[in-house]
Formats: sequence, C-alpha cells, structure tokens
Amino acid sequence: MRVATFSIAGERRVGLIDAEAETIAPFDLPVERAESGVLALIERNGAGLPRTLSPMPLSNVELEAPIPRPRRNIFCVGKNYYEHAHEFARSGFDSSAAAGAVPKNPIIFSKVPESVVATHSKVLIDTNVSSAIDYEAELAVIIGKEGRGISKESALDHVWGYTIVNDVTARDLQGKYSQWLIGKSQDTFCPMGPWAVTKDEFDLETAGIRCFVNGDMRQNSKISLLIFDIPTIISTLSQGITLKPGDIIATGTPAGVGIGFDPPKYLKAGDVVRVEIDGIGALENRVSERAQ
Amino acid sequence: MRVATFSIAGERRVGLIDAEAETIAPFDLPVERAESGVLALIERNGAGLPRTLSPMPLSNVELEAPIPRPRRNIFCVGKNYYEHAHEFARSGFDSSAAAGAVPKNPIIFSKVPESVVATHSKVLIDTNVSSAIDYEAELAVIIGKEGRGISKESALDHVWGYTIVNDVTARDLQGKYSQWLIGKSQDTFCPMGPWAVTKDEFDLETAGIRCFVNGDMRQNSKISLLIFDIPTIISTLSQGITLKPGDIIATGTPAGVGIGFDPPKYLKAGDVVRVEIDGIGALENRVSERAQ
Repeated sequence: MRVATFSIAGERRVGLIDAEAETIAPFDLPVERAESGVLALIERNGAGLPRTLSPMPLSNVELEAPIPRPRRNIFCVGKNYYEHAHEFARSGFDSSAAAGAVPKNPIIFSKVPESVVATHSKVLIDTNVSSAIDYEAELAVIIGKEGRGISKESALDHVWGYTIVNDVTARDLQGKYSQWLIGKSQDTFCPMGPWAVTKDEFDLETAGIRCFVNGDMRQNSKISLLIFDIPTIISTLSQGITLKPGDIIATGTPAGVGIGFDPPKYLKAGDVVRVEIDGIGALENRVSERAQ
Repeated sequence: MRVATFSIAGERRVGLIDAEAETIAPFDLPVERAESGVLALIERNGAGLPRTLSPMPLSNVELEAPIPRPRRNIFCVGKNYYEHAHEFARSGFDSSAAAGAVPKNPIIFSKVPESVVATHSKVLIDTNVSSAIDYEAELAVIIGKEGRGISKESALDHVWGYTIVNDVTARDLQGKYSQWLIGKSQDTFCPMGPWAVTKDEFDLETAGIRCFVNGDMRQNSKISLLIFDIPTIISTLSQGITLKPGDIIATGTPAGVGIGFDPPKYLKAGDVVRVEIDGIGALENRVSERAQ
C-alpha cells in the first residue's frame, strides 16, 4: 500500500495511491485527524483502514511529506555504509573521527521536525550561514508500534513502513559545531516523501537507492549494504528510549555525496536533487537561494 | 512571575505561584489549552494573562514539568563551563575531543521530549543499559518569540523565561555512540522544573547554580560563568534554524559532575539529586532502579 499526505483546496488529506492509474483516493478521515498525515492511519492500530472516497488524478493534488510535522526530532544514523564512511573520514569534516572511519556502533543524531519539506518543495540555501551544502539519499523507517528494549528479532514488528529522506547537510556547520544537530537541522533540510509504503510492499534485500543531481547519478547503492541494518538500529535506539508510533529513523547515506569529490560538489541554487528508492518512488527537490 | 504546570484531580492546569504564601492560583484556561502547560501562556502573545482563580495550597497539587511534552527535542549545549570542559576532557568519555577540551563554538545536541519528567518524579536507571549515569545541573531557557537569524543584541527579546533542567546522562552510551543523542535521551533523563520564571524576575549576572546528591554539594557555580552566554547560544542556533515559542535550550553544566571524580561518582538507586538555581527554586528527583 502506498499512502500519501496531500493538500487540495487548502485542506490536508491522506490518500491511497494507485501508481499505475496515477490517482489518489482520499481516506474518509475527519479533517483534524488528517492534519497529522499518515500518522492518522498508523494510530488506528488494529482498527483497520477507513473507507476511501473517489480517486482523483495525482496531478490535481499537492503532495506533502507523509508526516508533515513529526512529533519529535527525526532520528538519523551517520556513516552507515562502508564506502561513505571512508569518503567522509577523508573529507576533513568528520567531527566523529574519534569513533573511527567505520563506526563500531551506530552514530545517532537528530534533525528538527520543522526541517521537513515535501517533494517538489524548495531546499533553501542561505549563503550567509553555509557555503557547503550537501545531499544525502536515505531510506527512512516509520515506526508503527511503541516499544522499548526491542530485540533485533522482533524489530521489524515495530516498523509500519518506509519513505525516502534527503538528509541535507551543511558540511561546514557539521564540522564547526562538533555535534551534528545544527548542520543537519537547518530550515528546509529534510525533504521527505514522495509518500510512504507499508513494509509488506518493500524488499530490504533487493532495493536499490540512487541520487541524481541535475540528472547526473551521484549515489548508487543497495539498502542491503547498510553497516548497521534496520533491526540493529531499532534495537540499539530502543534499549533505553521508548520508540513511538510515527517516529522516523533515517538510516544513513551511501557513498557519492558532494563532500566525497575533490573538489567537493556542493549544492547551488538551481540544482535539482532526485532520490530514488526501488519500491518507493522518487523524491525531487530544487535548491533555491533564500531571499534575504 | 513564577508559573507552574500542575495536576489536580487528574486534570492538568497552569497556575501562578505565590512562593511566600506557598499557594498556586490556577489561570482560567480551557482544559485543552492547559494541556500544553506554560506554553499556553507563552502562545497568548500580547493578549495578556488570563484571570486567576482562587489560590490553593501548593501542597495540594502535583507539580508537572513547566512544558510537560515539548513539541520538539530539547536543545542542549555541551561543555559550556571552563572547569567542566576540562573535567570532561580528562574523563575519557569525551567523544567531542576533536573540538578541543574547551570548544571554540557551542556544541549543540538534543534530548527527546519524552525524556522530560517533573520535580519529585523518579529518574529510572536500567542497569541492563547503562552503568554510568550522571547528573548535570543546568539553567534552561524557554523561548517566547519565533525568530531566525537573531542577533546577539536582540537575543534576550526572544526569551520568555527560565527553568531548571537536570541533563541526566549515561556516560558510557555518550561515549559509545559518538553523537550524544542516545546517552542523553534515555527515558526519564530530563527532570525539568519545579516551575518557570519570567525573564524579568531572573538575574543572569548574579544567579548561582548548585547541585547536591544526597545533601552533598557537588556543583556550585554561577550562570555568569558560561563560556557561550545565552545571547551567543540563541544567535548561533537561530542562524539557520527558526526558533519557536516553547523551544527549550539547556545551557550546559558546571564542574562537579560524577565523571569528574576519580573514581567517578555515578548515580545509584536511592540517590536524591537536587538542583538549585537562585531566583528559580529547586528541582529534586530520586533515582530508582527500573523494574525489569
């Protein structure tokens, strides 16, 4: 099942996508419930899905991020593909170098909920604040069931589904402030979407992940190549932190980010970043200079 | 003005404290507004305060954290007093050592909103997860006015008031995971309170901050000794991240944390941690072992 949050006539709705027909059928949800996006479905627990209303063309609606405003910061994993860990270590921006080029344990940081933007929304660069803005294509896990002390074996029972995140990063700020929150949480730095897929429709073993900047392929890997796989991430996080329905965990980015090139290929106004994950779709955002 | 969030007969309320009379007068707020605690007052902007109802003895109510569930993670500053920066560097747990013992720029990380607990609530230690749990007495800033790109000169205009936070930390996890989110965000690891004071009642220049464990004074410093003062922290954070009313920023802890002793003095079940800040009050929490 592919589920999108969208707006039409100024109202937020959640709908079921028919990718072949290119339509979306809104769920019959009260307006105030639809405000929380896909989370409105996740929170129904065993109550089943609400009925859907008549489908409409996808081209008639404006997609929003699946969970437009998460209830707490997005959990993110750093340096979670081998080749990326090495390219980052070489870059000179690695304030986590003490953990080793390839970390022995998952590196977890966060992005503020307000950094989330939808597919086709602009990523804004503020040249007064950063001159080293980079893309990071990532698979994001959406938690469906609360849990603490979750074992690796039962971790996937707590997953509701998946979406795509572009973990946009100000490399200069990531290094300057040592802990990564500032460099990762700049306004508009978390494109998410284009929609969410339930876990039954997504194959962790075969899915490829790719990132293109202006059509030029920069990242091309497989989710199966994660250093710390999704059960390990969920188990690690939940040992002492209760995970909640609607929590989002961005799982890390493969090699090929801008900082990995010599000289680095940072994003500039006018660039279009497209992240594709097999079985989900494509998240595409244009970079624009922030009006001063 | 001292303002507390509290519950009485199972309902959450916000009230004005008369410290001398030891009473609290509930504001006449709709129940659903009072759910967000002191944030309900902050969000009234220029609308003035609601009228207060008859005062009741403080001893009749159960205090909650001023903002019991912040809308996003709590921003925290690391290594922000000189002597603490040195004791932490010596401890061997400093995964930010690359930034230097005394950081050149503020180190900003976060704690999840669900880690917040009230004064007199228990801090739970889970010996399966951590065996190195430490206290950190901190002044916390409560933001009142949205802003981005805030100058140091106007930073205090964005402050609504202050409260006390105990930034409880699992030192072993703080080191193990490199980025500090996991070690800082364990369930119950953010005691906050006992209430909030508006900025007009708080003197940043003279206020002392102290921490006692079972009556033994461990930390004793002054807010004026912060390496990065509050205007600098607000200005730094807001350069590219829009600050929101209700945001909480814990400003860092002075020397004397458990890790600074040789051997370290970690918290154990039965310990009582009391954090005092002049002009605010005392935040006191008992440590308890989590039931398995």
